[in-house]
Amino acid sequence: MRPNIKNIAVLTSGGDAPGMNACIRAVVRTGIYNGVNVFGVLQGYQGLINDNIIPMDARSVSNIIHLGGTILKTARCLEFKTDEGMEIAFRNLKSREIDGLVVIGGDGTFTGAQKLGEKYGVQVIGVPGTIDNDLYGSDFTLGYDTAINTVIDAIDKIRDTADSHDRLFFIEVMGRDSGCIALRSAIASGAEAVLLPEKATSLNELIAQLETGASTKKSSSIVIVSEGHKHGGAYDIAKKVKERFNHYDTKVTILGHLQRGGSPSSFDRILASRLGFAAVNELLKGNTMQMVGLRGNEIKTTSIEEALTKHAFKLESDLLEMTKVLSI
Amino acid sequence: MRPNIKNIAVLTSGGDAPGMNACIRAVVRTGIYNGVNVFGVLQGYQGLINDNIIPMDARSVSNIIHLGGTILKTARCLEFKTDEGMEIAFRNLKSREIDGLVVIGGDGTFTGAQKLGEKYGVQVIGVPGTIDNDLYGSDFTLGYDTAINTVIDAIDKIRDTADSHDRLFFIEVMGRDSGCIALRSAIASGAEAVLLPEKATSLNELIAQLETGASTKKSSSIVIVSEGHKHGGAYDIAKKVKERFNHYDTKVTILGHLQRGGSPSSFDRILASRLGFAAVNELLKGNTMQMVGLRGNEIKTTSIEEALTKHAFKLESDLLEMTKVLSI
Amino acid sequence: MRPNIKNIAVLTSGGDAPGMNACIRAVVRTGIYNGVNVFGVLQGYQGLINDNIIPMDARSVSNIIHLGGTILKTARCLEFKTDEGMEIAFRNLKSREIDGLVVIGGDGTFTGAQKLGEKYGVQVIGVPGTIDNDLYGSDFTLGYDTAINTVIDAIDKIRDTADSHDRLFFIEVMGRDSGCIALRSAIASGAEAVLLPEKATSLNELIAQLETGASTKKSSSIVIVSEGHKHGGAYDIAKKVKERFNHYDTKVTILGHLQRGGSPSSFDRILASRLGFAAVNELLKGNTMQMVGLRGNEIKTTSIEEALTKHAFKLESDLLEMTKVLSI
Amino acid sequence: MRPNIKNIAVLTSGGDAPGMNACIRAVVRTGIYNGVNVFGVLQGYQGLINDNIIPMDARSVSNIIHLGGTILKTARCLEFKTDEGMEIAFRNLKSREIDGLVVIGGDGTFTGAQKLGEKYGVQVIGVPGTIDNDLYGSDFTLGYDTAINTVIDAIDKIRDTADSHDRLFFIEVMGRDSGCIALRSAIASGAEAVLLPEKATSLNELIAQLETGASTKKSSSIVIVSEGHKHGGAYDIAKKVKERFNHYDTKVTILGHLQRGGSPSSFDRILASRLGFAAVNELLKGNTMQMVGLRGNEIKTTSIEEALTKHAFKLESDLLEMTKVLSI
Repeated sequence: MRPNIKNIAVLTSGGDAPGMNACIRAVVRTGIYNGVNVFGVLQGYQGLINDNIIPMDARSVSNIIHLGGTILKTARCLEFKTDEGMEIAFRNLKSREIDGLVVIGGDGTFTGAQKLGEKYGVQVIGVPGTIDNDLYGSDFTLGYDTAINTVIDAIDKIRDTADSHDRLFFIEVMGRDSGCIALRSAIASGAEAVLLPEKATSLNELIAQLETGASTKKSSSIVIVSEGHKHGGAYDIAKKVKERFNHYDTKVTILGHLQRGGSPSSFDRILASRLGFAAVNELLKGNTMQMVGLRGNEIKTTSIEEALTKHAFKLESDLLEMTKVLSI
Repeated sequence: MRPNIKNIAVLTSGGDAPGMNACIRAVVRTGIYNGVNVFGVLQGYQGLINDNIIPMDARSVSNIIHLGGTILKTARCLEFKTDEGMEIAFRNLKSREIDGLVVIGGDGTFTGAQKLGEKYGVQVIGVPGTIDNDLYGSDFTLGYDTAINTVIDAIDKIRDTADSHDRLFFIEVMGRDSGCIALRSAIASGAEAVLLPEKATSLNELIAQLETGASTKKSSSIVIVSEGHKHGGAYDIAKKVKERFNHYDTKVTILGHLQRGGSPSSFDRILASRLGFAAVNELLKGNTMQMVGLRGNEIKTTSIEEALTKHAFKLESDLLEMTKVLSI
Repeated sequence: MRPNIKNIAVLTSGGDAPGMNACIRAVVRTGIYNGVNVFGVLQGYQGLINDNIIPMDARSVSNIIHLGGTILKTARCLEFKTDEGMEIAFRNLKSREIDGLVVIGGDGTFTGAQKLGEKYGVQVIGVPGTIDNDLYGSDFTLGYDTAINTVIDAIDKIRDTADSHDRLFFIEVMGRDSGCIALRSAIASGAEAVLLPEKATSLNELIAQLETGASTKKSSSIVIVSEGHKHGGAYDIAKKVKERFNHYDTKVTILGHLQRGGSPSSFDRILASRLGFAAVNELLKGNTMQMVGLRGNEIKTTSIEEALTKHAFKLESDLLEMTKVLSI
Repeated sequence: MRPNIKNIAVLTSGGDAPGMNACIRAVVRTGIYNGVNVFGVLQGYQGLINDNIIPMDARSVSNIIHLGGTILKTARCLEFKTDEGMEIAFRNLKSREIDGLVVIGGDGTFTGAQKLGEKYGVQVIGVPGTIDNDLYGSDFTLGYDTAINTVIDAIDKIRDTADSHDRLFFIEVMGRDSGCIALRSAIASGAEAVLLPEKATSLNELIAQLETGASTKKSSSIVIVSEGHKHGGAYDIAKKVKERFNHYDTKVTILGHLQRGGSPSSFDRILASRLGFAAVNELLKGNTMQMVGLRGNEIKTTSIEEALTKHAFKLESDLLEMTKVLSI
């Protein structure tokens, strides 16, 4: 069952996502429960190169399950993309006899892990940890649920403010290449329109949609704008709408990085716990270059290869259709 | 496609659950979008009998997606269980030519709907709306995700308080016959132990588990108690533990009805929107006596018959196992 | 004690502020408790002119104490500034024999009330309801405490995100002419710097402050920008800093209108209740053209005249000094 | 200005209160800013005896302003009440040449500090840190505002749940000897009744009050019970009411220790910052045996003697009167 694994390590890399700490906790405790030594790598791949690797025990992950961010920190690391960098990283793992590695992050993180696995035979398992939900093989990535909750909390507050006709609120949310946050936020907040990077909505279409709302006596309208939209950010779009439809009173909110933080939702904590638990079990079974993910209500593995190459388009188009019906 | 349906009604019944309003909104707007008149029944089956039925339009469900509770109210109704009561209810529907009914609630609600469907041929579709998550055919019921979030918010605050050895916090959560809330809350809050109605944990087992924690230098422990446990509520159990293990300093929190309220999470709002949307589409397709539910990431139907009879035991036993590993 | 008052009205005007509903509730119930009829005016002064005035009873303010926004709505009203408009407004009050008016809002609201009082002898009492805290005579205005809580919730989430050197977060908060929100938010969030409309901080000064932080190994810095700053909004300032100090990674959040919404904090609900209660009691005592406010821990009156003319500069400069000490 | 002080220490003692960390941060940074060395004492007076005293720098209080609990921990310490214990504590301070001590806590904490000051001439300044708000000399103590916010969040959720006549919710809040939390929570949540330790409300009076509510068509009622009430806790009172008025459907929530935790509100963080800042400044001025507190909107000192002896009854009786008017 546990062929060779005696020492494993865990790192977080890329933009942080709520639930990373809950996942680190699960990796550490599942490892220890199974008689394996667990190391934490600080600041992602940079820490591997800098030998910033610390032993962890069950208590070193106490009282972190509810914290946003990551106690292991993350960092961008160009050096790891070079042959020399990866060689150093491998030697640091080797010197501690670490033969299994759990990486928590997004596509950049997985690309690095894959190379390490291919070139040096390190057993690597990936956990999808990114608020963008843009990986193939997991219905939800860590932090996605929390990020949407953060967005709708903000929009709920905006809804409170005095209704007045022809008032348009533009809310910019994260997702440069992926409209997942924007789409689900739009449904959950009851927004009147949503602009996604995957879909080229013209300003005319947007205006038409809002005018319909006005004709049915909506008192104010909320438009969710994904930061990667071709017409620009919320400010640019609000300006353009205002120029052509001067009677609108436009107000802009840019949520920015606060969407990456916050205490993880119960959904993200449970998902993080299950994924961390599963990742270690995959290592113990001798598996490698797999991503563990949630499909339906079950934890399944997908090859990192597949997770990376098929991730392009994940937008739930039936939900997009529904948004129109529900915002009449 | 839409055989006969011209008028439909929606009601909420049983204990309320966050997300009911989002679902009512979806039912009303999906109906209207499809050219159907939609009526709201106030106070559940009682309102059917009392003819407390009002026409609804797209604006009557504006700005409710984020509200806890239900704008249609709920009530217990013994009269509906009698032949006379059901007859009166049917006539009130008939007089408005309402031929389709969406009921949002738990098993009691569905039992009533089933009878109405069987006896009078009213087309009925059920939406699982209960925080207990105790219905077969839907991985999640409306309000379940929000309720767990409410519980973990409370426990996070308790975790903040000063660590001191041998301090035990007992938190009583809802779920008289179902440990679903307790189990998922335990995972998401990182609780040290959980007592479920489905499982006869002895006090000795509980103490043993806590002593293990103490030996690994845990500074304080949290025990989640489902209200239906055989040893009684959190107070009773705390008292019994204290009697036999006097060195423990025990503290009790009873969350009670606040678990039924609160603004629905994004997960519950999206689920509610999808289920309400699907329920109306089922009516339009001519279907009846079905429950719409979430399975995996898709909306599927289950016969109400099946939803009711198979609901007995839904506890995720793999998660229960995992809880032990992660709380070392 | 209650000379002539038999009918009073209440309105909200200007930008809405959390706590307005709690105050409306207090006005209505205190009036009714004292045997006075209470009317609600919809949409501020516009409603006075349009005769949009409704009778209220104790139940019409049930379950609103916790809601953001205002059930009476607000609106801008240019017409009320004309003699004709005010004349019509007065007649509508007169026709219902309303001789006392409670207005909840900011300086624009009070200016209108004062004219109505002076010209027509209507008894008017003002309640300071604005998140900006820019009125003389009340240490806190309604909504100010809630707005600051909203801001710090956002900043707490930003603090969660991965530390990396030379990362600067710029957070734009409300307060075009008043840095009150910015200053208190800066203290409560532990921000490294704050830019206020009342104070001409140069970009050099800002950079110097941040460099000091960097030299003491701060991993990232948060700068609060009041929307009225002479260097422009957070975007403009971030851009200018980036241009001159290219090694900074700058991130921007614009909170916008969400600061006006949200469920009022306990502080604002209690303040709102006390002020509404006091406003009616002032009317009953025969007082007019007064603002009720919180000074120290007591409710005191200030003439509207004084509240308006002395409101210019309220910045707590000792707190500004303290901010520097505490952000080392 | 700074006669002798070169080294100061800070400790937290008693039940923890939100805002303690913000205060520790202010003490540490204000000290360092003024060229003084600052030490942190772990686990309150127990840490003084155990010599559990660590040097602190500006970075050791980074990113704690928003955290509940206390990074210095608290503990009960019987040994400090003995002559021997206090002697050891003093020697530990002496050996580090610590001549000033800031203690954050409630009356027990202050009693200890006073003795240390009197007997050994250690300069001591107290900061009122307790959710109970039961100290003379400060309108608000640290944590009080946050605790009330926590209570009303809970009650808001309960308000969401389905209205039904004759339903009574009993909510037990903290305050064994002080009804401060109960009273302000009652106002802020719009509760129908409140039972305080300071006031002997009979069950008949309570019932009478609730029957009045019922006659005015209130759909459900909320009763806040302070844990120290002579009729017992919420469970006991609910039971007694149910026995005599069987038609009531009673539901109980016991909030317990979660009231001590949670991220401090902006009010508490600002208060904590100001008090910590002031405490160090008092030490620098050579003052001792004073408590710093908030009176009105200013920070003022009170002798610890006075703070302790006058603290008995602080209930705001005008607010209690108002509660009745506003809950009609």
